[in-house]
Amino acid sequence: MTIALGENRYGKSRVRLMKVNRAGARHEVTEWNVEVWLTGDFSRCFQDGDNSHILPTDTMKNTVYSLARSSSAKSVEDFGQELVSHFIETNPYADAAGVHIVATPWRGIEGFPAAFTHASDKLDTTAVTLSRAGVRSISSGFEKMWLLKTAKSAFAGYLKDRLTTLKETHDRLFGTLAAAEWRYAGTHPDYGALRQRVEGALVSAFAGHESLSVQQTLYAMAKRALVEVSEIADVRLQMPNKHCNLVDLSPFGQDNPNEIFVPTDEPHGSIEARVYRDDPQVD
Amino acid sequence: MTIALGENRYGKSRVRLMKVNRAGARHEVTEWNVEVWLTGDFSRCFQDGDNSHILPTDTMKNTVYSLARSSSAKSVEDFGQELVSHFIETNPYADAAGVHIVATPWRGIEGFPAAFTHASDKLDTTAVTLSRAGVRSISSGFEKMWLLKTAKSAFAGYLKDRLTTLKETHDRLFGTLAAAEWRYAGTHPDYGALRQRVEGALVSAFAGHESLSVQQTLYAMAKRALVEVSEIADVRLQMPNKHCNLVDLSPFGQDNPNEIFVPTDEPHGSIEARVYRDDPQVD
Amino acid sequence: MTIALGENRYGKSRVRLMKVNRAGARHEVTEWNVEVWLTGDFSRCFQDGDNSHILPTDTMKNTVYSLARSSSAKSVEDFGQELVSHFIETNPYADAAGVHIVATPWRGIEGFPAAFTHASDKLDTTAVTLSRAGVRSISSGFEKMWLLKTAKSAFAGYLKDRLTTLKETHDRLFGTLAAAEWRYAGTHPDYGALRQRVEGALVSAFAGHESLSVQQTLYAMAKRALVEVSEIADVRLQMPNKHCNLVDLSPFGQDNPNEIFVPTDEPHGSIEARVYRDDPQVD
Amino acid sequence: MTIALGENRYGKSRVRLMKVNRAGARHEVTEWNVEVWLTGDFSRCFQDGDNSHILPTDTMKNTVYSLARSSSAKSVEDFGQELVSHFIETNPYADAAGVHIVATPWRGIEGFPAAFTHASDKLDTTAVTLSRAGVRSISSGFEKMWLLKTAKSAFAGYLKDRLTTLKETHDRLFGTLAAAEWRYAGTHPDYGALRQRVEGALVSAFAGHESLSVQQTLYAMAKRALVEVSEIADVRLQMPNKHCNLVDLSPFGQDNPNEIFVPTDEPHGSIEARVYRDDPQVD
Repeated sequence: MTIALGENRYGKSRVRLMKVNRAGARHEVTEWNVEVWLTGDFSRCFQDGDNSHILPTDTMKNTVYSLARSSSAKSVEDFGQELVSHFIETNPYADAAGVHIVATPWRGIEGFPAAFTHASDKLDTTAVTLSRAGVRSISSGFEKMWLLKTAKSAFAGYLKDRLTTLKETHDRLFGTLAAAEWRYAGTHPDYGALRQRVEGALVSAFAGHESLSVQQTLYAMAKRALVEVSEIADVRLQMPNKHCNLVDLSPFGQDNPNEIFVPTDEPHGSIEARVYRDDPQVD
Repeated sequence: MTIALGENRYGKSRVRLMKVNRAGARHEVTEWNVEVWLTGDFSRCFQDGDNSHILPTDTMKNTVYSLARSSSAKSVEDFGQELVSHFIETNPYADAAGVHIVATPWRGIEGFPAAFTHASDKLDTTAVTLSRAGVRSISSGFEKMWLLKTAKSAFAGYLKDRLTTLKETHDRLFGTLAAAEWRYAGTHPDYGALRQRVEGALVSAFAGHESLSVQQTLYAMAKRALVEVSEIADVRLQMPNKHCNLVDLSPFGQDNPNEIFVPTDEPHGSIEARVYRDDPQVD
Repeated sequence: MTIALGENRYGKSRVRLMKVNRAGARHEVTEWNVEVWLTGDFSRCFQDGDNSHILPTDTMKNTVYSLARSSSAKSVEDFGQELVSHFIETNPYADAAGVHIVATPWRGIEGFPAAFTHASDKLDTTAVTLSRAGVRSISSGFEKMWLLKTAKSAFAGYLKDRLTTLKETHDRLFGTLAAAEWRYAGTHPDYGALRQRVEGALVSAFAGHESLSVQQTLYAMAKRALVEVSEIADVRLQMPNKHCNLVDLSPFGQDNPNEIFVPTDEPHGSIEARVYRDDPQVD
Repeated sequence: MTIALGENRYGKSRVRLMKVNRAGARHEVTEWNVEVWLTGDFSRCFQDGDNSHILPTDTMKNTVYSLARSSSAKSVEDFGQELVSHFIETNPYADAAGVHIVATPWRGIEGFPAAFTHASDKLDTTAVTLSRAGVRSISSGFEKMWLLKTAKSAFAGYLKDRLTTLKETHDRLFGTLAAAEWRYAGTHPDYGALRQRVEGALVSAFAGHESLSVQQTLYAMAKRALVEVSEIADVRLQMPNKHCNLVDLSPFGQDNPNEIFVPTDEPHGSIEARVYRDDPQVD
């Protein structure tokens, strides 16, 4: 019997960082939560306890802080690229390095150039990887974007089996806590501007869509982003269906003309898909 | 030996509600998470299992939904008052009824009158109680308001004992996840407008303060709200100190001129106080 | 108009500590999460920014670590007493000091004297306060104890109003995530042993009770603890009703003889009460 | 420009279920949290809003409850297989069906055959998939198993670069919140017994290991499970390093002989790997 080491990786998670830029009249703050990981041939460490090829995860943490100081990156995507380049350059035993960053959005309080509050409860993300052979991948995204439609949402004409009790509806609430990730064709000078354009396309497509299903709306959103932002190659969306159930008020002698709902967290529908630009030269 | 029943209460928690108003050109949504409780002489239930004076908590849940349908309340404070009045009027065994409501803030997506996203990650709250004798108390507040100052925050001149290692500072980051609760003198026609004025006073006092301590800033914020909003009688603030620790980059040959910090969740300072208007005729 | 400072306190929360005792053949680990707070006349700090009476919360954190090293306390209650005594003795400006400790329960892995896993998902707690005048209060308790009964639980004969739709039941599931806190008459040499006796009484009373309501079971549990453990003066219990709803399988042509339930987190009943020993000489 | 639908799936998450078996002298309870998903050619739904091939996720929820009633499955693995077989048999448009189940462990309270508390804070998991072509995969696992070693853990001899500040250690605390997943060669009659054997192997290997790194201990654990349990084909382990940092007490004139630590949640090391049986006939 032979026992073998399969896929493996190691790194540091939840390296938190707040960077203050006091250069302008208005201070700027960025808050990032960084995860770093490496892959490579670490079998001697796993199998024999030989740590000579292992960079401590504590050093990865130090690296995040040190590079944050020297970096002039304006976006999480740019900072992520600096980090993976550093690890590939300085660590001969890593075959690939990856970074995932979650950014907490702060905004300035009007009239007070050194005071801030959260801009929203959405979180911005990026994932960057670099292989020793130089293959780079960059994605951007977000987590926890709440979206709700109070019109233009139906669900009907679906498959029914003997266990189906759901009533067809042509006017339901459609709520979701969306997560998105999009990849780029090539690198770009201003990821922040691209992010705004992609999010704008996704949100306006959601808001205006005559929805026949969560699936159809998800596809329409991703398609809109791909049409409007030529720099991106694909979009992956996760849109859990945060059901709002109409309350039956008839036992109390009341009607309920689509007005009083119970929002629920569980169970919930889970719909996810990747939509891509099917051009030969991309992806 | 005698065993006796002391303070007790019972009720229903986490009754969630989404109400949609489709009357105007722009739909409106309110999302409330309601807690209801009753106190009274329920000793026969506790001691003998006699439930004849006990209104099921399931009925409390139904009541929230039914009153939400018939209510024209514009604020959580008004809806809370309707609920406690209902319970005192219909339940002869309750000595007092209380409601606590947490509102999730939704805002319309521009250009789409039936589409919404979260306005922020702050939550609005109210607590309303009514006794059978007619004593009513109403408070408003918020939870989870992130605030951060990158200037005008010092901490020095404090008490030092043999276990004190903290360095004095005249330029630290000051971050907090504030919660507030304010009480009113009397009832009022527009709690939403009062809420905006109180929050505006608290936030601008925080942002502009030359802070010598969290305590001093907390007091200045509460005082500002009391000065600017004569309708409120007191303010209670909880301001945990969400420390941002300056990273020591000297092992890497780098300086750190108040630029790179590690935000932390634990341990954290906890500062809380009530500040009130000391007038004979109020409270 | 006069603005005044009301109730206030400050301190340090989430000071985490792991202590390893390697003296015996079997190592011992204790993991504590400590909160410390002080009250006193801190009005000059709040109102004028004079910090000269303020011990930094960072020093409180240091104190927890330093005393943990020198302490020989065997229980959270004993360690809490050491902490509050220290703060009252060394800090002339504090009128009272308080400590709240949450202990994570570890147990040794059999056969391996230096390896551990969590003993359960229940957490043990204590709260200790000491005033400058020497008034001491000590309580013990727990959080997050899951309890479930699959028999001997009814709920019937309750108050019904026009909004009541709940069906009476004589055989429901009764699930709760209980929290408890009990106070002592005097101080005691072995709080760990008392804790075991109180918990044993509470759990066996829950398990064996012919329950007519959550209220009645709660009272029976507290009464049993007071009867069996003469050292305690009162017990406060919080027992949210974690409802398990019977699924209606009739649309699928199936019966459901009290077998398939949906456990839910919201909404949930909330029942809480304090039960005490009504002796003249206590409390 | 062509836009295309890539990988996609949909389903229902957080379908919670409590099943009570009252047949024996001791009642039995199982609590499962079920996720169901389907893949297939759902492009007409995504692209055209044609729902005719879409089984509502509400029906998936109903299916979980209905099959739970009729099932005699003794393990999450067996119930998962029933579910995926049902979806493939009844839904002609699904190419594959998958189930993920998380089980909350309850144990009977001694002496009371119808009363229960949580057995631990570890959660048991399974993942089962079935393709229309009949390819079946079954894995078992667990989440949130706390493990701690207070001896036999070193970390030294690692790679050092200019950003490395970590001190080598031959006696550190080693804490982790482990997750595991193992796959089987073939199907088996008693997954519960296999689960106990795999967990026993993993835990005893952790506890007894002379650890030179988290990586080495992870590998030793997985190898032990593969050696002791011939029915499994591979093991994947995730072992975040829940660091316990030694407190520097020297500013207070105290030593700290590996006794007082600060447990931390962030940042934390992340180590994960798959270890497999490299036999031609398996996997």
